Amino acid sequence: MQKAKLALKANSEHKTVIQLSDRVSIGGPDLLIVGGPCSVENQMQMEIIANRLAAAPVQALRGGVYKPRTSPYDFQGLGVEGLQILASMRDRYGLPVITEVMAISQIEEIAAHADVLQVGSRNMQNFDLLKALGQVNKPVLLKRGLAATIEELVMAAEYILSHGNSQVILCERGIRSFDSYTRNVLDLGAVVALRQITHLPIVVDPSHATGKRELVADLARAAVACGADGIMVECHPEPEKSISDARQTISLEDMVSLVRSLEPIAAAVGRSIPVGAGIVPRLSCV
Amino acid sequence: MQKAKLALKANSEHKTVIQLSDRVSIGGPDLLIVGGPCSVENQMQMEIIANRLAAAPVQALRGGVYKPRTSPYDFQGLGVEGLQILASMRDRYGLPVITEVMAISQIEEIAAHADVLQVGSRNMQNFDLLKALGQVNKPVLLKRGLAATIEELVMAAEYILSHGNSQVILCERGIRSFDSYTRNVLDLGAVVALRQITHLPIVVDPSHATGKRELVADLARAAVACGADGIMVECHPEPEKSISDARQTISLEDMVSLVRSLEPIAAAVGRSIPVGAGIVPRLSCV
Amino acid sequence: MQKAKLALKANSEHKTVIQLSDRVSIGGPDLLIVGGPCSVENQMQMEIIANRLAAAPVQALRGGVYKPRTSPYDFQGLGVEGLQILASMRDRYGLPVITEVMAISQIEEIAAHADVLQVGSRNMQNFDLLKALGQVNKPVLLKRGLAATIEELVMAAEYILSHGNSQVILCERGIRSFDSYTRNVLDLGAVVALRQITHLPIVVDPSHATGKRELVADLARAAVACGADGIMVECHPEPEKSISDARQTISLEDMVSLVRSLEPIAAAVGRSIPVGAGIVPRLSCV
Amino acid sequence: MQKAKLALKANSEHKTVIQLSDRVSIGGPDLLIVGGPCSVENQMQMEIIANRLAAAPVQALRGGVYKPRTSPYDFQGLGVEGLQILASMRDRYGLPVITEVMAISQIEEIAAHADVLQVGSRNMQNFDLLKALGQVNKPVLLKRGLAATIEELVMAAEYILSHGNSQVILCERGIRSFDSYTRNVLDLGAVVALRQITHLPIVVDPSHATGKRELVADLARAAVACGADGIMVECHPEPEKSISDARQTISLEDMVSLVRSLEPIAAAVGRSIPVGAGIVPRLSCV
Repeated sequence: MQKAKLALKANSEHKTVIQLSDRVSIGGPDLLIVGGPCSVENQMQMEIIANRLAAAPVQALRGGVYKPRTSPYDFQGLGVEGLQILASMRDRYGLPVITEVMAISQIEEIAAHADVLQVGSRNMQNFDLLKALGQVNKPVLLKRGLAATIEELVMAAEYILSHGNSQVILCERGIRSFDSYTRNVLDLGAVVALRQITHLPIVVDPSHATGKRELVADLARAAVACGADGIMVECHPEPEKSISDARQTISLEDMVSLVRSLEPIAAAVGRSIPVGAGIVPRLSCV
Repeated sequence: MQKAKLALKANSEHKTVIQLSDRVSIGGPDLLIVGGPCSVENQMQMEIIANRLAAAPVQALRGGVYKPRTSPYDFQGLGVEGLQILASMRDRYGLPVITEVMAISQIEEIAAHADVLQVGSRNMQNFDLLKALGQVNKPVLLKRGLAATIEELVMAAEYILSHGNSQVILCERGIRSFDSYTRNVLDLGAVVALRQITHLPIVVDPSHATGKRELVADLARAAVACGADGIMVECHPEPEKSISDARQTISLEDMVSLVRSLEPIAAAVGRSIPVGAGIVPRLSCV
Repeated sequence: MQKAKLALKANSEHKTVIQLSDRVSIGGPDLLIVGGPCSVENQMQMEIIANRLAAAPVQALRGGVYKPRTSPYDFQGLGVEGLQILASMRDRYGLPVITEVMAISQIEEIAAHADVLQVGSRNMQNFDLLKALGQVNKPVLLKRGLAATIEELVMAAEYILSHGNSQVILCERGIRSFDSYTRNVLDLGAVVALRQITHLPIVVDPSHATGKRELVADLARAAVACGADGIMVECHPEPEKSISDARQTISLEDMVSLVRSLEPIAAAVGRSIPVGAGIVPRLSCV
Repeated sequence: MQKAKLALKANSEHKTVIQLSDRVSIGGPDLLIVGGPCSVENQMQMEIIANRLAAAPVQALRGGVYKPRTSPYDFQGLGVEGLQILASMRDRYGLPVITEVMAISQIEEIAAHADVLQVGSRNMQNFDLLKALGQVNKPVLLKRGLAATIEELVMAAEYILSHGNSQVILCERGIRSFDSYTRNVLDLGAVVALRQITHLPIVVDPSHATGKRELVADLARAAVACGADGIMVECHPEPEKSISDARQTISLEDMVSLVRSLEPIAAAVGRSIPVGAGIVPRLSCV
């Protein structure tokens, strides 16, 4: 870890707090809970989700509009239309929105609509993308690659930091292993190690880590217990009908229960779940 | 998982409770916290440890006397002398003791001195040993192999169960990965999955999983948060002087703090840490 | 690798030659080709195989009689009856026979019937078994564990060597990876590394490494090209009807073709395939 | 593998031959041997290398000018200057040149100077880059990601094919494992599987696969023996002085010997090493 200059902790208290919006931040005593679907599918879907999650309370919305898919023949995301839906959710519910950027050419448009730009696992070492994100004035959520070492994740963050953007959030989302029972293996040891190595905030994504919805809540609780600064969970009004990642998506009801169950665990490790990040307008049409 | 007959849950409530002693059990609402050194080194070391842990409160003692070592030239354990020390700790402090059995020829002697027989990772598929343990009337703690799938672990338990011993405790202790920053990767997703697949109690060993003492406490908390029935942690009066596994061993002070920090997390998931398992005699000689 | 004393090469020429029988050896210029079924099923099966392989020419027969199976409910091998069949093959065809030993209690009987005692992957670090095999006066074929490092394999050999048996043959048979397309990943880099680290002969098992019969021949050729001292291949008169490992077993015809195809590759790397190891009696009953 | 449409074999004879230049191709009976340094360092270095390799005979030159480096503070490549050096080598020695493209913005310039555009492991699933390369009229050499499955590699090729470029060469260069003795594990089973799944030619890179120069030649021979269509090897006039990847780089002398040793193995599997791809001008200045 000798070569990182900007990502490393100066001392054990050193911790960066990143603002996602006026009222929402990560890295301080408040936990950040992010919810939302794998893919933004349409306006109505997102209305239902945002309305429910704002009251959960969840502090930020996620939703993919440019989708990295193994097959070129699979759904590649709604693109600009999806961005506009996300932006309208932010305006209507006050929740900052997070979405993935897959290419340099998408940065400007995504930065205009979203609050956090996510770099997916497959692009963790897409160094030209990282350099370009170093020049953006928005937080970047950097997901660990499927076989990236802890050091490689820190050095990928260093690419963004050294190109001028100090707002980097790390994300552990499972690594590849020999066992196909779960989609990946959530590496909470890496989360604990990262907290000791770097001052950057760390989010855990138990949905991609396991690929099975019945495992998500317990691992989200484990993530909070070991000191993660936030969690990001895929949820959907009708999980089985999700356009992508259906198998790992939980229902909105289960998301609400999960948030509630996190409170005493957060308290046990000196964190709290902030209320009032979002506004909950009455949803007339549902 | 189709071939397992005895290890699988009959329904979601199905759960086996195993008694380690009159007062100590695993699988019910009480968490089982096991502490102790990697190797039993001498009587005095174990006295100091048992005295401190009984008050922690810890519910069981661990300590290796037959040691599986990568090199034939490394310390192979105290053998019978170590067993006698363990047994005297049990008698003096009332804490059940757990120690590893490496060969069929050791079973009788270990069963005469210890309360739980541990099968190490390297022997998880030593099927003749498993069959022999199926004929023993003591609980067996079966550690997951370093590259064993969840299914293979369940089927290894099935070997013991199908040969007549219904008292099997599973143990997740980390799997091998590509990242050498931690010794292994603790797979809490497997713990959650195992709770859904099998009625057998599950213990987590964060010490072997990480190989670094500074990561142990946070992962122990995560293990409890995701529903493990117990944890097993290596601790030593002078960790740096441990004969084996020094790097992952925590101090007795840190063990006491860890137990305390587990209480609110245990409560958050409907578990409690029992007091009064051990007796704490005055330790005159230290 | 610092702790190995007996397994390491003294210099680049240092190489151990092990005799499997009067006429068959491994570690010298002659390649050792081992063929046979996963499990010994009956006398007739072995007659057909031995008759065909002796003429291939193959230099040794393999066949399991004590089988390490993931499930306790699967076929566990013919046991003593299988050993007797193997011994009769050796007597009739002059081919040394290799079979797996799973427990200390089996050693005496297996050593009385077989020419080479195999330690399976799951038992690579069954140290008590290794120590006991250190006192046997027969060659031991030690298979690499599914997640064993090169160093751990060398140190496992060191257990046998340091307990008095200098006849250890190493076997690379694939390691676990994230890709389930092949059963395991054959690690020929380890074979090359082992040739540079140790003086012990090295056999490659492409059958278990891939788990798919259509991949076996090409990988057997690769193994010879990179300097392996031998190969061990599962073959059967009716591969699809094999009691175990059917999917990776090739036919006897394919085995004969494979041996033939190895000749120019062996010659290219300074090795040869010896003829006349076995006697081919007329097989009256088939 | 169901979703691939263009990458799959129509029948067992189906094989694509790709021209790298008038005289050099891959996928037919001729083996393609590619040599060159990790990084293009300067004109003189490349002159010495090209002069020696053209006579080896090697059929193509490799050399990085845009370098994907874990750390932002490491040498990032000569850029355009390096491209010009590569192009001058091609003109002077007649050898087609291969270099890595890391970003869409580099494609035009690299395509103007190089004969084959390489996609590195870290970018195997940089889908926007793949789509853009689908519109280029030059062969693309697509390296397998460090934890990419065989199916994911095929689907990544499908991205390029489905966007209009039918000239895709696959490259196996080692996958991540638990053993740090070698840098990665060369997966020749994947090479054999890919030959059966896809009609695209396949190159093996034993240099990155092992990370140790003393293992390269044996694995190159193994690659040819199992049916690879080509190999790509890092070599340098003074390996220890290489700006990058010094530890895995072999000398030019060893490269010449390697090519010679491949001939009988190539012949054994029905391939040949073509002579006369390059012109060898007298090198006045060395």
